[in-house]
Amino acid sequence: MDIHDLTRNMYIKNKSKIVMLVADGLGGLPMEPGGKTELEAATTPNLDALAARGVQGLMTPILPGITPGSGPGHLGLFGYDPLKYVIGRGALEATGIGFELQDGDIAIRCNFCTLDADGNITDRRAGRIPSDQSTPLVVRLREIEIPGVEIIVEPVREHRFAVVLRGEGLGDRVCDTDPQATGVPPLDPVGEDEASKKTAEVAKQFLAQARTILADQPMANFHTMRGFAAKPKLPPYQEVYGLRSAAVAVYPMYKGLAYLVGMDIVGDAKTLDDQVDVLRQNWDDYDFFFFHFKYTDSRGEDGDFDAKVQKIEELDAAIPRIAELDPTVLIVTGDHSTPCYLSGHSWHPVPTLLVSACCRPDAEQQFSESNSVRGGLGQFEAKYLMCLALANAERLGKYGA
Amino acid sequence: MDIHDLTRNMYIKNKSKIVMLVADGLGGLPMEPGGKTELEAATTPNLDALAARGVQGLMTPILPGITPGSGPGHLGLFGYDPLKYVIGRGALEATGIGFELQDGDIAIRCNFCTLDADGNITDRRAGRIPSDQSTPLVVRLREIEIPGVEIIVEPVREHRFAVVLRGEGLGDRVCDTDPQATGVPPLDPVGEDEASKKTAEVAKQFLAQARTILADQPMANFHTMRGFAAKPKLPPYQEVYGLRSAAVAVYPMYKGLAYLVGMDIVGDAKTLDDQVDVLRQNWDDYDFFFFHFKYTDSRGEDGDFDAKVQKIEELDAAIPRIAELDPTVLIVTGDHSTPCYLSGHSWHPVPTLLVSACCRPDAEQQFSESNSVRGGLGQFEAKYLMCLALANAERLGKYGA
Repeated sequence: MDIHDLTRNMYIKNKSKIVMLVADGLGGLPMEPGGKTELEAATTPNLDALAARGVQGLMTPILPGITPGSGPGHLGLFGYDPLKYVIGRGALEATGIGFELQDGDIAIRCNFCTLDADGNITDRRAGRIPSDQSTPLVVRLREIEIPGVEIIVEPVREHRFAVVLRGEGLGDRVCDTDPQATGVPPLDPVGEDEASKKTAEVAKQFLAQARTILADQPMANFHTMRGFAAKPKLPPYQEVYGLRSAAVAVYPMYKGLAYLVGMDIVGDAKTLDDQVDVLRQNWDDYDFFFFHFKYTDSRGEDGDFDAKVQKIEELDAAIPRIAELDPTVLIVTGDHSTPCYLSGHSWHPVPTLLVSACCRPDAEQQFSESNSVRGGLGQFEAKYLMCLALANAERLGKYGA
Repeated sequence: MDIHDLTRNMYIKNKSKIVMLVADGLGGLPMEPGGKTELEAATTPNLDALAARGVQGLMTPILPGITPGSGPGHLGLFGYDPLKYVIGRGALEATGIGFELQDGDIAIRCNFCTLDADGNITDRRAGRIPSDQSTPLVVRLREIEIPGVEIIVEPVREHRFAVVLRGEGLGDRVCDTDPQATGVPPLDPVGEDEASKKTAEVAKQFLAQARTILADQPMANFHTMRGFAAKPKLPPYQEVYGLRSAAVAVYPMYKGLAYLVGMDIVGDAKTLDDQVDVLRQNWDDYDFFFFHFKYTDSRGEDGDFDAKVQKIEELDAAIPRIAELDPTVLIVTGDHSTPCYLSGHSWHPVPTLLVSACCRPDAEQQFSESNSVRGGLGQFEAKYLMCLALANAERLGKYGA
């Protein structure tokens, strides 16, 4: 049973507004026994006021013990079972630079590499060539032409770039050309079915032309291709929830993930204040807003406890201007935990707060990991959050009579 | 994995008695911020005494955010995955009037409608003709005869009635004849497979005879047919749990749902006191009793907070006479929440209490939504309740060695 088979047939349209505020990597850990988490250490009068009115709980991004990347983490929040829907690596790379994949596109992650005179790889990352040197090479690769296929080449950073092949009948079941070893030549692209053989043939022509263009380079004299992937088939928000949805984000990756589920990307915010402005400017035109705050994750990745606390406090300070809009449902959550103690994503469930007129408030007066343990939402999987959002907006009918 | 594949192979018979007391629509909400729910506002010394001895938790009827109708709500309580087992609309209509569908029966929901001189529908509900006028028309439709098929026609209320076709090889994949519009004629019944084509042919003959019988009516001069449905295939209680089971209910719908899972319908109670009498009279003959109390839901649907509180208190007052029977396992729950605040079914999890000699009691001394949040059963899906019931009755063996 796919949850969308339920929502698709049960959604109701009304004038309610839902805001899902995602503080990336929100959940944390104490730095020492008996200590507080980042969220507990932060002074958050506005989030606590919401907690007093609302209901909280702990959201498991995927399954207990499973740490998600940003892709699966957000798919869960958006209500797409992250174990069922997979965004291929190439598609995620393209998404991460904000590239809007179309149906039929094949996206490929590419690495510049170094070949010796015999054509064997001596460095799989071309000395991690800096972006200011790799970007002009990426631009030169745009000269490549292959009849019948449109080719898009985009820099990512350092030795990494993305290629998108746009044409008829291209498959994505093509093996990586990176042999994952040095002292051997790159592999030829090989397709596993008819459509993918066509892609492999195009990739081969691309590689041949690239070898000529890059021949004069001392380090980046060739490249590999990995993670061939079509645009993932994610049924859009409008179809599965009946929601006009908008993403208010700063970073391309999160705009890209929102784009993949059919959200409009609104505004061009650079700061949290900008984001709130964009939210307010677009308030009348959408039913659902995905509002992404990146820096809780960034400071978590840095392992900088005090800096993550400060970012949580900045977010808290933005709450009144969001709450003033009087959303029918306001959710505050994260796509996963990023504890400073681990300096990276983790599996720990994410404190999640929901406020609506018809939520069943719990006794908790503060928003935190330890309060969430006792919260009325209990512990639940991320993929159900959208159902709770729709239910609290009175946007879901009854299942069965 | 179907839970019945476990229970079917693991159940043990003993002399224990299980009572599942279902207060329909039990869960609620505060009417204003900081207020109490209906159950919290009610004075319930007897339920609280059970809570002090037992263990409680919050039961999710289907999935987070999903509001169930009575059918799926009860299937969950009875241990049938409500997302796997679906009771077709016609079967639920027949069940709702207490009609005992047999294997092979096809049940159909019918609406009287009004046709103009051209045969186009002018009113899909025949002016919501009152029951005292529609019932005699339903009785007249009993004159219809079709060779090889037994036909049962039963009034429901107002413009609604049910038809059951009983014959060999009838399928239920037949499209509705209600065009969901006025100014157009009703559709012909169309079957999607061989067996359903046979049903559609019978339905066509029924409609032709009905048109003649109803021709002299000013309003209800024809009818539509919707929700063709066979008796759902629900493996019976005796087979999956090894339980001799009985339903003690007042309303036909709940007797009907219990019938569908193979329970005996005992007594003819009209009041809660009657129901307790029926329970006591049948105590020696069954292992499991489904005891259904309707009025918590009815007053919730009315949005009458004080009246729902009173119904909860009436139920509480009946507890001692039930507890006197000393059931091995006593469960108090609901099939869903019906908060007066929403005047209808809701998705909120249902406070659920279990008392047995071998339950692991929690610290909670009262039975309520807020106590249940902290209860020892945690939050769990309704479909697991029967396993907890059997386990606490020591009626389930060990899984694996």
